[in-house]
Amino acid sequence: MSANSEYVAPCDERRPFISGFDGSAGCAVITLNAASMFTDGQYFLQARQQMDDNWTLMKRRLPGYPTDHLPAGTHVGIDPTLLSSAEGTSLKKTLNARGNGDLVAIEENLVDIVWGSQRPPRPQDKVFIHDAKYAGESHADKITRVRAGFESLDTDGLVVAALDEIAWLFNLRGSDIDYNPVFFAYALVTKADVTLYIDEAKLDSNVRSHLQGIKTRPYSAIFGELGELSTTLVQSKRKLLAGQNASWALVKALGEDNVKVNKSPIAMLKSLKNPTELDGMRQCHIRDGAAMANYFGWLEHELLFNGGHLRLSEVDVADKPEELRRAQKHCVGPSFDTISSVGPNSAIIHCSPKRGSDALLDVNKMYVCDSGGQYLDGTTDVTRTYHFGTPSAWERECFTRVLKGHIALDRAVFPSGTSGYALDPLARLPLWELGLDYRHGTGHGVGSFLNVHEGPQGVGMRMNYLSAGFQHGMTITNEPGYYEDGSFGICIENTCLVVKPETKFDYTGGVGGYLTFEPVTMVPIQKKLIRSGLLNEDEKKWLKRETSPI
Amino acid sequence: MSANSEYVAPCDERRPFISGFDGSAGCAVITLNAASMFTDGQYFLQARQQMDDNWTLMKRRLPGYPTDHLPAGTHVGIDPTLLSSAEGTSLKKTLNARGNGDLVAIEENLVDIVWGSQRPPRPQDKVFIHDAKYAGESHADKITRVRAGFESLDTDGLVVAALDEIAWLFNLRGSDIDYNPVFFAYALVTKADVTLYIDEAKLDSNVRSHLQGIKTRPYSAIFGELGELSTTLVQSKRKLLAGQNASWALVKALGEDNVKVNKSPIAMLKSLKNPTELDGMRQCHIRDGAAMANYFGWLEHELLFNGGHLRLSEVDVADKPEELRRAQKHCVGPSFDTISSVGPNSAIIHCSPKRGSDALLDVNKMYVCDSGGQYLDGTTDVTRTYHFGTPSAWERECFTRVLKGHIALDRAVFPSGTSGYALDPLARLPLWELGLDYRHGTGHGVGSFLNVHEGPQGVGMRMNYLSAGFQHGMTITNEPGYYEDGSFGICIENTCLVVKPETKFDYTGGVGGYLTFEPVTMVPIQKKLIRSGLLNEDEKKWLKRETSPI
Repeated sequence: MSANSEYVAPCDERRPFISGFDGSAGCAVITLNAASMFTDGQYFLQARQQMDDNWTLMKRRLPGYPTDHLPAGTHVGIDPTLLSSAEGTSLKKTLNARGNGDLVAIEENLVDIVWGSQRPPRPQDKVFIHDAKYAGESHADKITRVRAGFESLDTDGLVVAALDEIAWLFNLRGSDIDYNPVFFAYALVTKADVTLYIDEAKLDSNVRSHLQGIKTRPYSAIFGELGELSTTLVQSKRKLLAGQNASWALVKALGEDNVKVNKSPIAMLKSLKNPTELDGMRQCHIRDGAAMANYFGWLEHELLFNGGHLRLSEVDVADKPEELRRAQKHCVGPSFDTISSVGPNSAIIHCSPKRGSDALLDVNKMYVCDSGGQYLDGTTDVTRTYHFGTPSAWERECFTRVLKGHIALDRAVFPSGTSGYALDPLARLPLWELGLDYRHGTGHGVGSFLNVHEGPQGVGMRMNYLSAGFQHGMTITNEPGYYEDGSFGICIENTCLVVKPETKFDYTGGVGGYLTFEPVTMVPIQKKLIRSGLLNEDEKKWLKRETSPI
Repeated sequence: MSANSEYVAPCDERRPFISGFDGSAGCAVITLNAASMFTDGQYFLQARQQMDDNWTLMKRRLPGYPTDHLPAGTHVGIDPTLLSSAEGTSLKKTLNARGNGDLVAIEENLVDIVWGSQRPPRPQDKVFIHDAKYAGESHADKITRVRAGFESLDTDGLVVAALDEIAWLFNLRGSDIDYNPVFFAYALVTKADVTLYIDEAKLDSNVRSHLQGIKTRPYSAIFGELGELSTTLVQSKRKLLAGQNASWALVKALGEDNVKVNKSPIAMLKSLKNPTELDGMRQCHIRDGAAMANYFGWLEHELLFNGGHLRLSEVDVADKPEELRRAQKHCVGPSFDTISSVGPNSAIIHCSPKRGSDALLDVNKMYVCDSGGQYLDGTTDVTRTYHFGTPSAWERECFTRVLKGHIALDRAVFPSGTSGYALDPLARLPLWELGLDYRHGTGHGVGSFLNVHEGPQGVGMRMNYLSAGFQHGMTITNEPGYYEDGSFGICIENTCLVVKPETKFDYTGGVGGYLTFEPVTMVPIQKKLIRSGLLNEDEKKWLKRETSPI
């Protein structure tokens, strides 16, 4: 598996197996005498409930709380396939500095030994061809473009470890992981060869013929083969390039002196959608919008005319968007776990209520639904906030301010290369005016029938967005929000394409030109939540495009 | 003198003396066989005209044009007091890499030897006390605060080379340099001592008594004394800190291993104005506004009723703002060279027309005036654009878009720590919408009866603004513009204080809170240049505050 995937396969859920704690953020450290679980504030309660008393909870970022109790000189073993080389190097350095401690890469994962035959098998699903009529470019052409970049990157080859990059490069898709249509593999692209390291059982005859000219080797063979390659590299003086999420194991196999770890050039190539992909995004969002408009219509009907508020919880309705999406052409499934939450639960950012603690829907409370679909021609991600009764003046004011931020970002025209760091305040200003804000980024890239979160671009306060300025063909979500503890949440999210508007002038003199966002999401924004007195004429004009009739 | 001052004294104008070229940007390289002048595009013409044929013009940033012709292995001599240590180290490294070339620090400046007795003397003006009723804090308290920061900076002392930092630290001002009320000096602050290196002839008895408890030593004595100090430092293991504009000579005197060059903590302390300084800025801007309103009134009268368009050039009127300012209480002089330009000349950014190439004023053309004053209680910087006839629809549209950007930045409320990098797009968006822009930053800090340009904060695309987020008490200009080659320029500049607004909420939970800009400039914005159809209600409300009656 690749280090740093957003979602993992059941066979890789080692922390939940060994500790019981299945939150999305946590790090287990097991020593001869103790077992500690480090996690963040959002999971303190859940982790304590799920773990037995063998485990000590280590609260991250809480002043005065111990976050580390390893004696100086401790040698810590780790499975080097499960962390990036930067993480490995950094941890090793920290331990080295503490009384000659060390981080030791171990050959066999100790949790897997305990897990034994109970461990779910690694997924064996077949991969399938992502037709060029959706991908817009043959994998041969993509490989040519990757190689064309080698000179300026001063390298003779690239180790590809990110699963979405591999899927993109070969125009293949899989189903090894929930939501992300990827498959377990590694790839090595050199000037002479392209090798796909993959469990060969996943390849049917169609895919084999699609991969003509590309070497296929067993998944784990990469470690040995990189080792062999390293002897050649020592002579050539030119280092191989590995993407930043290449595991420590891969880098060690190559020899740390033979590889430079940096941004993968594929991340940037993949982020720039071609005309076919851009059109696919437009098309799939029309179908996605039909499904979601159906969903909110169905929900309103259930609540207002079918007594839904007496029997339907947030979790009960959360499967409905998937059901309605699957009825649309080209839909493959959801692009992430639907967030469906009402009232106080909707104030918990990006957290879906769980069965058991889910609230009944309520016409007197705000309802937030964040969901998306995977389609053969694109990936969607949309959030809408609805109120099926009479929202309060304050709820409407907050909603309108979130909307103003959304519109300001959507309408922005800016020189090519402007970063999402610099544009982020546009979405926050109407909230900042009252001393309010939201504690999440404003936007992320969206894959093309690939991961719903992809980089390198993004809108928010992360410094790494600075070096990933917008370019024509990128995708980005626009999702400002507002979350009032114990009361309600609001989020308005569209998926957008980064396109060239027709500007009267071009002050860049043709160097990049100007860009703007083209929203492709087709789901109505609820009118009754808007206080139009807070909108100016430009905002009202924008709004005419996409409000609901209610 | 300090390396990297924005303005220099006549005795330091070595490049104009040796070459004849007196533009603000240029680097002369004299070898045994050649003399080369490197400069930027704005100065190609002027440099060629001013220099004789012994000089070769080296055009910077012009593709294909030679920018460097030193043979490999060349040893280049340089006066190490005239460049920063970072520049020295970088140049040395570049030369070292080219066939064992080298940068050699020379003891005596070779230009000064040629200049001989013709060289103007170093200014001997007396320094004077900047009264605590204007400074708002005694120099003893400032020194205590500087020392209080030593522990977290892991240092035992600070070498202060920036002239405005020295003036601020000791509550002293001088007149050694045009526009900046500073004086030539160095300072050394250690835990035990404070030493001011200054020509003692500059100190009268008042200042001597003001400096009680502070050692004063001759200006050039610092080099020898830092050399002696370096022997102690080798034992203490703790490096001294020097500000980034400390000269290479200072760093070499200390020994490069004994000093770390970094942001001077005084730059940040100085940027955070105390209540007395903030109030002084407000007060001096009232008087400054009166002077500038008088100026534009006078100008309008001359042009419309006195035939001024037949006899007054841009340069003729450029002294008038200074004259009117000097009539105001506490005015010491101008804070920079007034820019007064009309029509096509106003399209040349930040460049004042010269006598001889100056145009007559014209009621049919846009007029831009960028000027400022030094007052005992503060420093001002204001730009206004006026049209004394009938501006075209396009001029009005551009002016209104610049104004919209100005208003957007002025009205912004944002969390403490937000950087001027992130706020910069607010000022540009209305121009970006048409594919237009301006090629300068949007704002800079302003000193308190000190340099009109000060850091570390600023609004613009420079990455170094990222680490200098806004804090309460900073100052900043708000100066978007638009410049149409060959036609006209527009700039609307206010000086602002960074203050805490009353927000309904505080999402930061008291950690910094929210900030906004309080414009203190009191000079009317001309109404006839505004196309009000382009303004929304909020912008119109803002405007009521500060438009002219015409």
